[in-house]
Amino acid sequence: MDCEVLAIGSELLMGQVVDTNSSWIGERLAAAGIACFYQAKVGDNHARMVAALRVALDRADAVICCGGLGPTQDDITREAIAEVMGVPLVRDPEIVVGLKERFRGRDVPDTNYKQADVPVGALTIKPVIGSAPGLICPVKGPGGDKVVYAVPGVPAEMREMVDGAVVPDLVERAGEVATIRSRFLRVWGVPESRVAQIAGPRLEALEGSPTTIAFLASATEGVRVRVTTRATGSSAGADAERALDVEEAGLRALLGEAVGGVDTEGLELVVGRLLVRAGLRLAVAESLTGGMVGARLTSVPGASDWFAGDVVAYGSDVKRGLLGVGPGPVVSERAAREMALGVAGLLGADLGLSLTGVAGPAAQDDQPPGTVFVGLAGLPDDAVAGSPGARVARLALRGQRPTVREVATTSALDLLRRALLALPAQPGQ
Amino acid sequence: MDCEVLAIGSELLMGQVVDTNSSWIGERLAAAGIACFYQAKVGDNHARMVAALRVALDRADAVICCGGLGPTQDDITREAIAEVMGVPLVRDPEIVVGLKERFRGRDVPDTNYKQADVPVGALTIKPVIGSAPGLICPVKGPGGDKVVYAVPGVPAEMREMVDGAVVPDLVERAGEVATIRSRFLRVWGVPESRVAQIAGPRLEALEGSPTTIAFLASATEGVRVRVTTRATGSSAGADAERALDVEEAGLRALLGEAVGGVDTEGLELVVGRLLVRAGLRLAVAESLTGGMVGARLTSVPGASDWFAGDVVAYGSDVKRGLLGVGPGPVVSERAAREMALGVAGLLGADLGLSLTGVAGPAAQDDQPPGTVFVGLAGLPDDAVAGSPGARVARLALRGQRPTVREVATTSALDLLRRALLALPAQPGQ
Repeated sequence: MDCEVLAIGSELLMGQVVDTNSSWIGERLAAAGIACFYQAKVGDNHARMVAALRVALDRADAVICCGGLGPTQDDITREAIAEVMGVPLVRDPEIVVGLKERFRGRDVPDTNYKQADVPVGALTIKPVIGSAPGLICPVKGPGGDKVVYAVPGVPAEMREMVDGAVVPDLVERAGEVATIRSRFLRVWGVPESRVAQIAGPRLEALEGSPTTIAFLASATEGVRVRVTTRATGSSAGADAERALDVEEAGLRALLGEAVGGVDTEGLELVVGRLLVRAGLRLAVAESLTGGMVGARLTSVPGASDWFAGDVVAYGSDVKRGLLGVGPGPVVSERAAREMALGVAGLLGADLGLSLTGVAGPAAQDDQPPGTVFVGLAGLPDDAVAGSPGARVARLALRGQRPTVREVATTSALDLLRRALLALPAQPGQ
Repeated sequence: MDCEVLAIGSELLMGQVVDTNSSWIGERLAAAGIACFYQAKVGDNHARMVAALRVALDRADAVICCGGLGPTQDDITREAIAEVMGVPLVRDPEIVVGLKERFRGRDVPDTNYKQADVPVGALTIKPVIGSAPGLICPVKGPGGDKVVYAVPGVPAEMREMVDGAVVPDLVERAGEVATIRSRFLRVWGVPESRVAQIAGPRLEALEGSPTTIAFLASATEGVRVRVTTRATGSSAGADAERALDVEEAGLRALLGEAVGGVDTEGLELVVGRLLVRAGLRLAVAESLTGGMVGARLTSVPGASDWFAGDVVAYGSDVKRGLLGVGPGPVVSERAAREMALGVAGLLGADLGLSLTGVAGPAAQDDQPPGTVFVGLAGLPDDAVAGSPGARVARLALRGQRPTVREVATTSALDLLRRALLALPAQPGQ
C-alpha cells in the first residue's frame, strides 16, 4: 500500500505559506508502515488540481488531498475530486445541521454552506475543531480500486482527521501490520562529508537490507545521521526497534563522542538532563538573541526544575543597572563575563549563561555583525578564591540577522552542553 | 515560461525535514514573473527521481531540482538528470581543482570527488559558500527544448545559485519582462468565512482580470487576505503595484479597522512602530512563554529604540524576588498585574507587558493548561492618583504546550497593539 500527498493552495506555490502539512502526514504514514513515494503541491485551479490527482492516482493506491475545503470562493477541492470520481456533488443535510449548530443562532454565512457539499459515493469525516468535514472518496479506475482522502489545510484540523480517520482507514485497506521507523544520531562539530566517510563501512554492510542510512546537514543543528528500517508482522514495532538498536550501536562505535544525542532530542533537552544530573540550576542573560535561549530551554516540560529564569538585557542601561556590567563596550569579553556572573547572582542560580553580540545589520562597539561573546559563570573549575568565576568564548558567525541569532543560540547551548558533560553526576542522579 | 520545482530527499517525504526550499524558490519565480504550477518531492531513489523528472518535463518548460548534490552515497541527483538527458557523467577537472583548494592541503574525502561529476552537455554553476556545483542541463525531447537546473539542498547554497544563476537564466529564456506580485492584508479578530463574505463584492468585481484574491487562515496569525496580480512589459513592476494599490484600497473600504497591517508585517513590527509613534519604551515579563515575546520583538532591527528588555521569570522565586509578585498563586490576574508593574519599574520602561499562565501538560495553581493572564502596565488611562496602573486580560487557549505558548505570544502582542492604537501620536512622530 502506498499513498501520495497532494497539498492544495496557490499560497504554497508562491512561497507565502510553507507546506508543513505534507511533512507531518509523511511522518504519520511512515509510522503506520504506509509507503509515501511522492508528494506534490498544486494551486487553487480546477483543471490543474484534477490533472495532479490523476497523476497521483496513476502511481499510487491512495492520495491524501490537504487544503481547499474551506468556506471561501477559492476552496475547490470538493469539485476537483468529484470530477475525478465522475460524480456530482450533493448537499449533505446532516452537515448543514452541524454548521448551524456551530454558529449557535448567529447567521451562517452563505459561503459556509458549500462545506456541506459531498461527492456522491463519498463518506464524510466529522470535524471536531473546525467546520470543514473531511472526505473518504472511493475511485474506480483501470488501475483498480483506489481512494482519495480530503482533509482541511488548517494544521490542527488536518491532524485530527489524519490520525482519527485517514491512517486507520489506510491501515485497514493495507491488511498488513507494518512499520517504518527512523532514528537520528545527532553529531556536532564534524562536517557532513567526514561523517559520511567515517560511517561508510556501515552503509556498505547494509546493502540489500531493509535498513538504510542517510545524512542531513544543517547550519544550525549540526549533522544528523538517519537510520531507517521497515518491518512487518505482529512484532513489527519491536523488530524495527531492534534493527535500529543494532545500527545505532554500530554507528556509535565508529563516530564515538561526536554523537551528542538521538532523535529529536534538541540541545535544550540534553542540557536540561545534564543540569539535573549535576544538580545545578541555570540562569541566562541574553542580548542579541532577545529571549531565544530562554524560549528554547522552556520548550522542555518541567524546565522549572533546572531553569531559574532569563534577563533579556537589550538596552545597555539594563545590562549596567540590573546585571552590573561596568563601563566600556557592552559587546566584549568582559561584558559577557559580567552578565553571566550578574544574572546568576541576581536570580540565585548556580550557573549563569550569557550572550552579547552584534546581530546586524549594523555594527556595534566597533564589532562587525556576527561577533558574539558567550559567557558561562559558576563552574567549579573556574572558581577563584571560593568565588564563582566565568569563562568566555568568542564566536565569529556568518549570515544575516536571523541566522546569526539562531546560530548564536545553538552555539551557546552547545558550549553549555560540553561544559556540563565534564561535570560529575550528583549522588542519586 | 513555466517552471516546476522538484525537492529531492527521503527525509522530506518522511517529514524529518520540512521542505522550505520549494517555497522560497516559488517566491523568487513569482517575483520574476515565471509561473510555477506544480511542485513535488521525491526520495533518494534513482528510478523514482527519473520518473518524477519526466512527469515535470512533460508539463513544464523548466524544472529546478533541489537537493541530492552532496558528497554522500545517497546523493544521486546528478545520475538521475544524466539519465533523463540520455548522456553519461564526466569528471570535471576544474571542479576537482576547486575541491582541493577548498580543503586547503587536508585530504579531500574520496566521496567528495563525485561532486565533480557533470552530465555531458551541462553547464556548471560555481559554488561560493558550499562545495557542490550547481547544474544547468539542456534537455531535448518531443516537447521541444527544455531545461533542468540542479541546486544544492542546503538553503544558503541553494539561494545563492537560484538568485545568481537560475532565475537570470530563466528570465533570459522567457524573453519577456513580467512580474507576479502579491500583497497581504492582515486581519485580526474576524473569522475567515466572515472575512470572505465581507470581501465578496471585490472578488466578483475581479472576475476575468489578472488580479485574484484568496484567504489564508492560521491559528496564530489571524486571517490574511492575499491579492495577487501579474503584469508584463517594461513597466511591469509599477503596473502591478498600481493594481495592488487599487485593490488594497477597495478591500480596506470593506474591512475597515479589522485590517492590522500589510504583507509580512508581523505584530512585532506594528507594535514597534506604534511604540515609536507614542514615544514609549516597553519592558516585558514572561513566564510560560519563556522568552518568546522578547525573541519576536528583538527580531525587528533597531528594536533597542523602543524595547528595554525582558525578564523571563520562570521560577516562582524569581517572580517574587525580582518582580515583586506578592503571596498567592503566580498564575493569577494579580500576579500578571504585579509582573507588568514590576518589570516596567525594574527596567525603567514606560510600559510593562506580562504573561503568566499554564503551558501544560500539567495544571498549575489549580488552573488548567491554556489559562493565560496578560498584564499591561503604564497606560495613561490606567494611572491611579498619578501612579502607573495596569489592566489584565484572561485567555483560555486550546492546544498542546507549543501551541499554547505560540498563541499566548501572539495574543499578548495583539492586546498591546490594540492598546497602543488608542494612544495619540507624540509630537514629531
